[in-house]
Amino acid sequence: MKQDISQRKLRAGIVGGGQGSFIGAVHRIASELDGQAEVVAGAMSANPERAATSAKAWFLSRSYASFEEMAEREASLPDSIDFVMVTTPNHLHYPVARAFLEHGIHVVCDKPVTFTLAEAEALVQLVEQKQLIFALTHNYTGYPLVRQARQMVRQGELGTIRKVLVEYVQGWLAEPQERLGNKQAEWRTDPARSGIAGCVGDIGTHAENLLSFITGLKIAAVCADLTTFVEGRRLDDDANVLLRLENGGKGVLTCSQIATGEENALSIRIYGTKAGLEWHQMEPNTLIYKPADGPQQILRTGMPYLSDEAKALTRLPAGHPEGYLEAFANLYRLAIADIRRVESGQTPLHDYPTVADGLRGMRFIQRVVESSHKGAVWVDL
Amino acid sequence: MKQDISQRKLRAGIVGGGQGSFIGAVHRIASELDGQAEVVAGAMSANPERAATSAKAWFLSRSYASFEEMAEREASLPDSIDFVMVTTPNHLHYPVARAFLEHGIHVVCDKPVTFTLAEAEALVQLVEQKQLIFALTHNYTGYPLVRQARQMVRQGELGTIRKVLVEYVQGWLAEPQERLGNKQAEWRTDPARSGIAGCVGDIGTHAENLLSFITGLKIAAVCADLTTFVEGRRLDDDANVLLRLENGGKGVLTCSQIATGEENALSIRIYGTKAGLEWHQMEPNTLIYKPADGPQQILRTGMPYLSDEAKALTRLPAGHPEGYLEAFANLYRLAIADIRRVESGQTPLHDYPTVADGLRGMRFIQRVVESSHKGAVWVDL
Amino acid sequence: MKQDISQRKLRAGIVGGGQGSFIGAVHRIASELDGQAEVVAGAMSANPERAATSAKAWFLSRSYASFEEMAEREASLPDSIDFVMVTTPNHLHYPVARAFLEHGIHVVCDKPVTFTLAEAEALVQLVEQKQLIFALTHNYTGYPLVRQARQMVRQGELGTIRKVLVEYVQGWLAEPQERLGNKQAEWRTDPARSGIAGCVGDIGTHAENLLSFITGLKIAAVCADLTTFVEGRRLDDDANVLLRLENGGKGVLTCSQIATGEENALSIRIYGTKAGLEWHQMEPNTLIYKPADGPQQILRTGMPYLSDEAKALTRLPAGHPEGYLEAFANLYRLAIADIRRVESGQTPLHDYPTVADGLRGMRFIQRVVESSHKGAVWVDL
Amino acid sequence: MKQDISQRKLRAGIVGGGQGSFIGAVHRIASELDGQAEVVAGAMSANPERAATSAKAWFLSRSYASFEEMAEREASLPDSIDFVMVTTPNHLHYPVARAFLEHGIHVVCDKPVTFTLAEAEALVQLVEQKQLIFALTHNYTGYPLVRQARQMVRQGELGTIRKVLVEYVQGWLAEPQERLGNKQAEWRTDPARSGIAGCVGDIGTHAENLLSFITGLKIAAVCADLTTFVEGRRLDDDANVLLRLENGGKGVLTCSQIATGEENALSIRIYGTKAGLEWHQMEPNTLIYKPADGPQQILRTGMPYLSDEAKALTRLPAGHPEGYLEAFANLYRLAIADIRRVESGQTPLHDYPTVADGLRGMRFIQRVVESSHKGAVWVDL
Repeated sequence: MKQDISQRKLRAGIVGGGQGSFIGAVHRIASELDGQAEVVAGAMSANPERAATSAKAWFLSRSYASFEEMAEREASLPDSIDFVMVTTPNHLHYPVARAFLEHGIHVVCDKPVTFTLAEAEALVQLVEQKQLIFALTHNYTGYPLVRQARQMVRQGELGTIRKVLVEYVQGWLAEPQERLGNKQAEWRTDPARSGIAGCVGDIGTHAENLLSFITGLKIAAVCADLTTFVEGRRLDDDANVLLRLENGGKGVLTCSQIATGEENALSIRIYGTKAGLEWHQMEPNTLIYKPADGPQQILRTGMPYLSDEAKALTRLPAGHPEGYLEAFANLYRLAIADIRRVESGQTPLHDYPTVADGLRGMRFIQRVVESSHKGAVWVDL
Repeated sequence: MKQDISQRKLRAGIVGGGQGSFIGAVHRIASELDGQAEVVAGAMSANPERAATSAKAWFLSRSYASFEEMAEREASLPDSIDFVMVTTPNHLHYPVARAFLEHGIHVVCDKPVTFTLAEAEALVQLVEQKQLIFALTHNYTGYPLVRQARQMVRQGELGTIRKVLVEYVQGWLAEPQERLGNKQAEWRTDPARSGIAGCVGDIGTHAENLLSFITGLKIAAVCADLTTFVEGRRLDDDANVLLRLENGGKGVLTCSQIATGEENALSIRIYGTKAGLEWHQMEPNTLIYKPADGPQQILRTGMPYLSDEAKALTRLPAGHPEGYLEAFANLYRLAIADIRRVESGQTPLHDYPTVADGLRGMRFIQRVVESSHKGAVWVDL
Repeated sequence: MKQDISQRKLRAGIVGGGQGSFIGAVHRIASELDGQAEVVAGAMSANPERAATSAKAWFLSRSYASFEEMAEREASLPDSIDFVMVTTPNHLHYPVARAFLEHGIHVVCDKPVTFTLAEAEALVQLVEQKQLIFALTHNYTGYPLVRQARQMVRQGELGTIRKVLVEYVQGWLAEPQERLGNKQAEWRTDPARSGIAGCVGDIGTHAENLLSFITGLKIAAVCADLTTFVEGRRLDDDANVLLRLENGGKGVLTCSQIATGEENALSIRIYGTKAGLEWHQMEPNTLIYKPADGPQQILRTGMPYLSDEAKALTRLPAGHPEGYLEAFANLYRLAIADIRRVESGQTPLHDYPTVADGLRGMRFIQRVVESSHKGAVWVDL
Repeated sequence: MKQDISQRKLRAGIVGGGQGSFIGAVHRIASELDGQAEVVAGAMSANPERAATSAKAWFLSRSYASFEEMAEREASLPDSIDFVMVTTPNHLHYPVARAFLEHGIHVVCDKPVTFTLAEAEALVQLVEQKQLIFALTHNYTGYPLVRQARQMVRQGELGTIRKVLVEYVQGWLAEPQERLGNKQAEWRTDPARSGIAGCVGDIGTHAENLLSFITGLKIAAVCADLTTFVEGRRLDDDANVLLRLENGGKGVLTCSQIATGEENALSIRIYGTKAGLEWHQMEPNTLIYKPADGPQQILRTGMPYLSDEAKALTRLPAGHPEGYLEAFANLYRLAIADIRRVESGQTPLHDYPTVADGLRGMRFIQRVVESSHKGAVWVDL
């Protein structure tokens, strides 16, 4: 029998994240940051040697050659993992998540939730059926000031939302990196591993998620113009999308990986009848609030005037910058707390992106691609 | 006979710009700033009393009750005006400009160039026929760093342009200011004085012009979603437009006057194969250059590394901010120099927005409105 | 007899400002910007040929070979100048100002007010005796948001001021420009034309003036460490100064002309018991207000929430940047209005730096130099 | 016998950091972030109950009631801790560090290194004698761009350094927080726990350390004006210090905890003969490089053009902000690597602030206080 879960750190497993991966280490750090979990097991690569080396570098107790073996074996251990982190390329998200869910193990999964829309629909049902925690790491929702923004919208401080400009622009694929030995670029531009979309799936979904998370509004229709600028590339590397929101508001979503000179510029601007809001991921500790009738205000992480929720997801006093890892860790904090709740018979809160958000994201990808294929026409979501 | 034009300031007249106007004073200051012209005559209002009072406040030598009278009388004076500044609402641009052109007087005209596309076409012919100077005050092209940006594009420093994001967002019409006594709002939201577009004509054309000016690229097609958010308003107050450029590049143009909390936020970002560029009108003395292979560079007005053209349009050492009026004055500087050229038999340079740019802008307005009326479909320009 | 001054532009004369000068054109533009004055006469250079050429380039009606001749002749003309602008190197400020004051002509003079402290004391007496307008162009006090800051301090929004950090750093003299043909550098580093201080007189006085203008506090004592970093230079090019304010507050003033890579970075930060304020000359349309108990606020030129005074010195709507020339023109606007008042028998307001401020500035220079010469010890002002 | 240290995470202990502490959790997160160490033991409070509760909340294996007991017991365990983290108030740094060093346990200690200068001198000798690792968490030296700055200075990219402006301003003690129940404020303003300086010891030393770390220059003399603005406070809460550097350069160090509205604004600007550099802790992923002859460059964490050292201390791609915890973790990464080196017989690199830096910091504090007490006179270091 497991030790009382309240008296110990949770045990985490990881699938993917072998050496050369970027996001694997992010999940490890994020899951362990608050001292509430420890990664102890992994199936870190399809390559057995790399799997073993990677696990050793992390001092993992147990290393597996495949995720199927891992799911089965872990489920039988007295000190089995409490949850698994799915950090593989997209095409494996569904089979991996399913394997662990079917063995009763909670899942934290990277985005987009699955490879296809159909998989996402199946996954929603499986999670519902198993009553396990499934958290999707649209990590930008973990920033305290994104939470602050959501709360300000909820409390009506913006009035009715009329216009949203959300963008996510990068420059790292302006050259054909996938043919220059960049592993990250290889799978992200490969339809067999990434899915039907490139840039839209990789970062456009973050933008869609951020918009929905903060505004609470769904996108009703899209008119999308996707482009593949780099010769020979098989998926889009740029997208401009007109948005119509369910409440009659309008918007633009633009994402690009050929925006030369840009790093990781996710930002959102929201305009309501009473105020505007602006947030930039690259300066995440600043939220600009623009009331109609007074000076712009610079809301800052860690300040006493913020909402309780924003404060609860902040570890440091104001002016001590928290960044990407801390935001990522906030999702783990919330998911781990939910796992503790479920395991002790309490009702989980689900205050992080869930499988339902993942499904909505997959639908967004599908509709955007469809719109563009038809010549950039309007398609309902 | 006129005094040798090289030995004196030019004499300027103004139509419009009476008390309560914003742009009239701008034209006066801009035309006089370099000490190369002086405003001496005006038909400053259709209201005779206001016309007289306004002219007196400016110490004008000659005040007229109508622009027709002014054009006719001035043409006959020995010390007649050398050029006229057209600063009326849009519906009068064409008749006023025509009247002075037909009397042989050069014209500097505010934008958009005319009320209708047909007028713009007629005006192009008239200017061509008269061989007079016609400058259109898309004043943002007067900023030194906009000129610098254009030159960098021309010299190939960006490589092939792939993506352009241009926006012009304001918040001042988020409320129905036109029903709250705001004169500026009244005519700008009135189809009888403004034309077929509201926000698109007022500021969207500046964005279109800026894009074309810097990139040298024409917009090939638009897909535009216009909205009137404020109840009872008769023209659009918000627009999101997908762009396809003549070279295969893509873009987004968004403009709004209901973006609560925004002042006058015109900005442009251009991404080429070799570098990106970013410029914000509200911090006009900074141009961000983003080469693919090195750190971003902050180009600043007044610095020795800038192009000769940028330097030639700068009056102060670096760090002494120049703004909107100085940029506006740069167009006057260039137009006045051209008038001197023409009057002394030299060939003018036309290095400012011309009637041809005005026509292109009117076509842009027309196509954007057409696209939106048809349901936000693609329309060629 | 002069034409009624209310019915016409004022006539201005200029001493200095010949070709190659930077500040001469600034004074011309600033004085004429609001259409309330026109420069008509000048003694623009000690070199007669350059004086004539310069006057012709500006289309001046009357050009003089010396300021003495100009003062005398102008005083006798029916359409004489109403005021003179003194834009020479420092060593001529006093004799020029005196000549015109003694002929009953108002003076607008560049800073520092004189060459020596003794001259400043004499000038105070002369201005007092003549009851003429004397405005000193510490132009940074002309920015609307500097006025806003002053008013916020006056109204107690900062509480008791505890700490002030004021700085003015430039990099243009990091190399020995005075030996490389730079005329501006030559006289500014020449004790015979600049005075006992280099950097401290040229820009340190602006910093001192800004501090006093906004806070209303006098500096009680200084401890100054001046340095001449560039070999062969005869005056300081860098200064760090500890400040004690008359109210017990403390501060630091640093100025430099060897701060490589800096343009014209004048800034001030003020900390009171209730709030802080921050302003940067290079982004003059932004004032950062930092209340103890809420988010920082970004006050912006042209916005309706500003003080009447700030609004009165703004020509454009918010987001249309105004800069150095407009701020400079604001001092002329205030001085010209005062000249009109005096000439029509009204009491002037003197709401611009005056000869008294100039005297205080000269004393500041003298004490700072004295402190440093004694080894950077405390000296009372 | 201990398990081969290369095959496992290091085991860490903590002294201090009990509930209510800010810096304790920082050390835990920072030490564990890279998966190279785990905190297993602690003497987290002098209050036994709080010690136990705190240890339990962190799932520590071993909790002690006193640091003396902990040092003795741990030294005897087969799975003893490899290093201890000293996170107590200042007055305990020395006795705690000594206790563990004398038991052969490596030490990572918060700053300032000791309570008195004499203790610091004794500690230097002890560390030397024991040949153990002693790392001092002047954590700001852990930022990749601070390392980049140091390397640029070392490589001569700035030329000879002439002027340094370093500041560290906060507003949190503008009110008497120590009498309002703020635990952090209580000990920091208490001479019995903090030492002879308040603000200067708490944050001024960080500024001194940053200056020395980046420039490689020692401060030769100081002239310091310390103030206690808040009535009843027993230590300084504000300091302005003139600096003379060993190479003839000059500088200003200002620190304050009464700078209303400021968060944690540590920044440095360095001016050399060839270029300037500017870095702000609150936007730590940006380093501004200001060459004399070209545009300013914005160096950014994670970019390929950075030095190997900066890259080695970065975990994420560019544009994924890293902050305070990651910088702190970088010091642990370097210290842990050194502990592994020492334990495996290799030579440590000491590329983090050491006990020698701590001694220099204590001397800085002592001299600054001495200077101020004597009336703000110059004192050599």
